[in-house]
Amino acid sequence: MAEVKENLHMEKIVSLCKRRGFIFQSSEIYGGINGFWDYGPLGAELKRNVKELWWRAMTRAREDVAGLEATIIMAPAIWKASGHVDTFSDPMCDCKKCKKRHRADQLCEDQGLALTKGDNGQFAFPAGTKCTHCGSTELTEPRPFNLMFKTYVGPIESEDHVAYLRPETAQAIFAQFKNVLETSRQKIPFGIAQIGKAFRNEVTPRNYTFRSREFEQMELEFFIKPDEAIEAIHGSVATVPVSGHPGEPQPNWGWQAWHQYWVEERVRFYEGLGLARATLSFHVQTADELAHYARATTDILFKFPFSKRDEKGELKGEELEGIAARSDFDLSQHQRFSGKPMSVFDEELRNAWPRLPQARQDALWQRYYAHRQRYLTRMGVAEDAAARQATEDANALAKGNYIPHVIEPSAGVDRLILALLTNAYTETVKTDDKGRSETLYVMQFHPRVAPIKVAVLPLLKNKPELVARARAVFELLRHDLACFYDEGGSIGKRYARQDEAGTPYCVTIDFDTLGENPELHDTVTLRYRDDGRQERLKISGLRQWLLEHVR
Amino acid sequence: MAEVKENLHMEKIVSLCKRRGFIFQSSEIYGGINGFWDYGPLGAELKRNVKELWWRAMTRAREDVAGLEATIIMAPAIWKASGHVDTFSDPMCDCKKCKKRHRADQLCEDQGLALTKGDNGQFAFPAGTKCTHCGSTELTEPRPFNLMFKTYVGPIESEDHVAYLRPETAQAIFAQFKNVLETSRQKIPFGIAQIGKAFRNEVTPRNYTFRSREFEQMELEFFIKPDEAIEAIHGSVATVPVSGHPGEPQPNWGWQAWHQYWVEERVRFYEGLGLARATLSFHVQTADELAHYARATTDILFKFPFSKRDEKGELKGEELEGIAARSDFDLSQHQRFSGKPMSVFDEELRNAWPRLPQARQDALWQRYYAHRQRYLTRMGVAEDAAARQATEDANALAKGNYIPHVIEPSAGVDRLILALLTNAYTETVKTDDKGRSETLYVMQFHPRVAPIKVAVLPLLKNKPELVARARAVFELLRHDLACFYDEGGSIGKRYARQDEAGTPYCVTIDFDTLGENPELHDTVTLRYRDDGRQERLKISGLRQWLLEHVR
Repeated sequence: MAEVKENLHMEKIVSLCKRRGFIFQSSEIYGGINGFWDYGPLGAELKRNVKELWWRAMTRAREDVAGLEATIIMAPAIWKASGHVDTFSDPMCDCKKCKKRHRADQLCEDQGLALTKGDNGQFAFPAGTKCTHCGSTELTEPRPFNLMFKTYVGPIESEDHVAYLRPETAQAIFAQFKNVLETSRQKIPFGIAQIGKAFRNEVTPRNYTFRSREFEQMELEFFIKPDEAIEAIHGSVATVPVSGHPGEPQPNWGWQAWHQYWVEERVRFYEGLGLARATLSFHVQTADELAHYARATTDILFKFPFSKRDEKGELKGEELEGIAARSDFDLSQHQRFSGKPMSVFDEELRNAWPRLPQARQDALWQRYYAHRQRYLTRMGVAEDAAARQATEDANALAKGNYIPHVIEPSAGVDRLILALLTNAYTETVKTDDKGRSETLYVMQFHPRVAPIKVAVLPLLKNKPELVARARAVFELLRHDLACFYDEGGSIGKRYARQDEAGTPYCVTIDFDTLGENPELHDTVTLRYRDDGRQERLKISGLRQWLLEHVR
Repeated sequence: MAEVKENLHMEKIVSLCKRRGFIFQSSEIYGGINGFWDYGPLGAELKRNVKELWWRAMTRAREDVAGLEATIIMAPAIWKASGHVDTFSDPMCDCKKCKKRHRADQLCEDQGLALTKGDNGQFAFPAGTKCTHCGSTELTEPRPFNLMFKTYVGPIESEDHVAYLRPETAQAIFAQFKNVLETSRQKIPFGIAQIGKAFRNEVTPRNYTFRSREFEQMELEFFIKPDEAIEAIHGSVATVPVSGHPGEPQPNWGWQAWHQYWVEERVRFYEGLGLARATLSFHVQTADELAHYARATTDILFKFPFSKRDEKGELKGEELEGIAARSDFDLSQHQRFSGKPMSVFDEELRNAWPRLPQARQDALWQRYYAHRQRYLTRMGVAEDAAARQATEDANALAKGNYIPHVIEPSAGVDRLILALLTNAYTETVKTDDKGRSETLYVMQFHPRVAPIKVAVLPLLKNKPELVARARAVFELLRHDLACFYDEGGSIGKRYARQDEAGTPYCVTIDFDTLGENPELHDTVTLRYRDDGRQERLKISGLRQWLLEHVR
């Protein structure tokens, strides 16, 4: 499973997914709807497993994260504060000749060109850009198209009643930050986790389920103290190792240590689902790419077969998750737009500050002031008002109050599912002794995410004693394990069926199970999916063995 | 927990839910958004538990149900076929004087009146209907308002690109019926289960989370053979007991047995979550109330404090779930609108039919013909075309082909959560020996749904050996159980905190745990939430004891 699926055609994945009920086109009987995909029986279980593992890793396995489940439609003011109403758009253009609509940046990219951006923020096409559909160069100027789906809440369709389908789950976490803090007995540093649907009205949905218009996110907002507070309390922020996991969280971690910690935690999560390091790559956003408020963003990429290749011809990968250090931007925006304070009181900081030498106080005060002032002026606050507000903020810091900073690991569920499907897919052509060949498909999922953990199979359907015993084994296992009973067809056919579903273990009840040989009596054949290896296991220990091997 | 919460004011629930982080108003910092509610840390866990229990009961615990996870936005044709575009509306009116908008039927009801419906389907107010806001009788005529939220998919806002947020999850199941059937190795009778968000643009959202604009459903569509097929294969359909659970599914069950089975199964489910029979009531829809295609619908109601009362002054209850026998209406509609066949081939029926006496064949053929013909003419198909099509359908039946009928248990997650919160809520006023009284709140959730299963508490925070041992017990439990560690405040305060969160068990590590008394060494105090009873348990058996008591 460690190998990168270099030259796998996505059509093969699409075909198996449809045939085995992992993924269907939404509304298929009506010709489908572009950018929307449904999960069939196996896909729904795969997705549930992934979401449950994320939720457990984030909440139950940690004491410093609380869960949240917010609505998809929220007050539209939230999207004003977050900047989505004003700037969450892609450049779009039309071909004047064939009327085809394009995403302007993708249109350029597909021709080895790059869209340019003027000083006025206006996009323009480089000379020679053509419509990829009809070849005409008569294109409208690129114009921004907001990607939020719009609707109206209540019975009046007017601008006053516009609402949006959330384009990300993160903002609900910021909006409920204070409510969660006050009800959950958490203190900074702590996080709020959420899983849920989000919607983006993509101009051109692409690459199967990778870029779809309705998708699901798993987002954590992890709130930390500003570095100035850490320095005041602990003297300095911890130094961060050049690479690798920085270990158990420490009180003196600044944003860089927390950022690196979350990148490494998330990689461990992916490895734990069967995505080996070799199948992943990283993109550290450059200063040019970073949003103005972001201090660092590391994207974890998976090497999809449709990814572009680098100079060396290697797959670059496509984003599974971005881990962003977003400073205190989001909470600050909501504080300004809602008029509700988003700051917290930190007793440690309040106690530490007066004990600092004056010069140290001044330096930290100045740095914090500069940070707040920069944010406010960037957001269009007039210079003197910004200076007044930043002074207030820095004075508040000295009394133990600040707006927390945030590290945001934000993952796409559907992309991860597609990565798991791609990673799991294997096919082999088998030729029998009569020269007939057939293609066998094995979905090599990690047992942890596999939709079905074990199949129980009586060797023969027409032997009541085998069937009865197989049913008993099935009953023994089904309450704790996703379990499938199958008696139809030859044992080879049934194994092949389970291989395609990605079931890691098959348990066969045969005549030895019922037989007189004390060595084999009450044992079953356990077959491993990936290499077809078989061994015999006592029924009495089967449940426990399986539970240990699928967790 | 068996008692009906008769006179509980909802404000008390609302207040506890906000204070303890079960439920927050969506977008609260922006003044909220009417009809939308978020689940905080405890609420999110409660909801996850309920959904997981439903999913397990429906899929893993059964071999005859497959899961599905479809999109919220689907092809708009689906809502044409389902009838939602044309008829999913509430009557709405405006007060001409104060401009307040009302749901016309509720406006009448609130004044002890009833909206009337003319022969032309037009609603009208009875004489004397007033605006409940300003008292004016100058109201506009009631007019239908479609409850589906509308949006546009793709970059063009035109009628061609309208799409809807699904007002129910059921239709996706019908639309994907064939895909699931073909990929899941299921045969009729079998079901498809789905959990997901749905949206209704209610004119007046009411009763806290009971009627909100964004909500979650748990729906099963259970597909069965038409009674004519059962009769052809088995001679007759099974007789159904007058009341109670009809037992394990049998091959000769007709729609009535299946309907009763699902009503009783669903009641068992609610009982299993701690809603005693006494807190539930039933409403069997009358012929007048039934949709034209429905054969029977039984609503399971919960006696919410805000429910209306019957003549005897008893709470009538409000709908948690409806179990509808919907005939073959839905699949027939999708067959007509999509042009894709929704019928299945039934080998048993094909084999049984030719063995029937001619008179029996004729009678079954006629009955099936009449049923299909009635459906088609009701849907506006011209008489002769309907007759031709019904003849085709009845001929197909004789060859083993039919469109399955369906039983639909359709439950609202948020309503169930509100029922569980209401049912769990208890308060007692406790007066100490100095005459000081305080109110104690205990959320008596069934352990199965409780957000936290067990709290681990060292008796004292400042005794390192108690804390270390408590941490060790916490580590022992947390991987398999939602577990909370708390060392802050007196033990009484900590118990009270867990009582409010609804945690069924508290485990206290005290000096006896560490002590020399061999009877008490390595034991903990286990405290029961509902009666405060305490007993001592060996740490070695604690995990197993808890696992058995929370499942």
